Amino acid sequence: MKEIMAVIRMDKINQTKKALAAKGFSSLTCIKVTGRGKKKVNYELIEDLLDGDKKIVKSKEVTEAITEGHRLIPKRLLLIVVKKEEAEQVIETIMSVNQTGNPGDGKIFVMPIAEAYRVRTGEEGKAAV
Amino acid sequence: MKEIMAVIRMDKINQTKKALAAKGFSSLTCIKVTGRGKKKVNYELIEDLLDGDKKIVKSKEVTEAITEGHRLIPKRLLLIVVKKEEAEQVIETIMSVNQTGNPGDGKIFVMPIAEAYRVRTGEEGKAAV
Amino acid sequence: MKEIMAVIRMDKINQTKKALAAKGFSSLTCIKVTGRGKKKVNYELIEDLLDGDKKIVKSKEVTEAITEGHRLIPKRLLLIVVKKEEAEQVIETIMSVNQTGNPGDGKIFVMPIAEAYRVRTGEEGKAAV
Repeated sequence: MKEIMAVIRMDKINQTKKALAAKGFSSLTCIKVTGRGKKKVNYELIEDLLDGDKKIVKSKEVTEAITEGHRLIPKRLLLIVVKKEEAEQVIETIMSVNQTGNPGDGKIFVMPIAEAYRVRTGEEGKAAV
Repeated sequence: MKEIMAVIRMDKINQTKKALAAKGFSSLTCIKVTGRGKKKVNYELIEDLLDGDKKIVKSKEVTEAITEGHRLIPKRLLLIVVKKEEAEQVIETIMSVNQTGNPGDGKIFVMPIAEAYRVRTGEEGKAAV
Repeated sequence: MKEIMAVIRMDKINQTKKALAAKGFSSLTCIKVTGRGKKKVNYELIEDLLDGDKKIVKSKEVTEAITEGHRLIPKRLLLIVVKKEEAEQVIETIMSVNQTGNPGDGKIFVMPIAEAYRVRTGEEGKAAV
């Protein structure tokens, strides 16, 4: 079993949830987080933005891209535990829904799960996933 | 060392906390999450519920069970890091407190922890857990 | 690749963020959590505190230390995914900023990451971290 941990934009959660359910992956856990990526900060540009320089196009995504490295942006963290052979399909589904091409699209990490239990029935391992 | 990650009902957190402390496991981290399980959605029943059909028993747990696959339900995610040999006891304790027999009782996952540090003292490994 | 999971005091988040960025680790995810450590509870002292005994120094940190084992304290959980060879530097940086010497300084856990993807570009593995 594997845990897929995806950090995505907060406005992509419903679309991601639906796309996963359509592929048969309805089980997931969602956490409100804040985060930032690798982007270096352009402090001059930030100052201009804060000064309200009219010449700079201030679309939501441009602003987010510029300030991304500077402060923590609200994101959603998805945790999805699946059988090993299902991981690729889940990753592809999350990628296809969340790729806008702009910085801040998010990251996906895969971690090993050693054991799994369904509390209601006590089922173990793959049967619990 | 192992990390035990348990998704449980939000109204079970105090009972779980107490049961774990009674067994000597007081150290834990709790996160507010939302989630859903594998349950398929009965859309007709949901419509009846939304229409306020008086014939359907609308107990909290029945409603939750029916709509579980449909929307994300508030849950609590517990993270507990323990020594390998303690994991079984922690899992059993969480299971016994959280088993209501209804869908939505939650899941428990076990993940390997490679290293652990206590920030205050700099202690490493098992001594930090 | 490794995931560094650090539970720290909530008022240490900005300092930790800056110290990590200064070392070149700007990418992180932050989660609001509550937690408690191993500390045994001194119930007599808690009662005195609640009674408002004037003789006890009620600094924020003393109060937190005393009640730490009793209730869940708001904390911040940091998730930082780095290349294997960078993990030590990240851990040292978090330790140096968060060591106050009082109970409640937090814990750091290290977990293996099997795969990583940057959603925007589809880059995999180390290139995505």
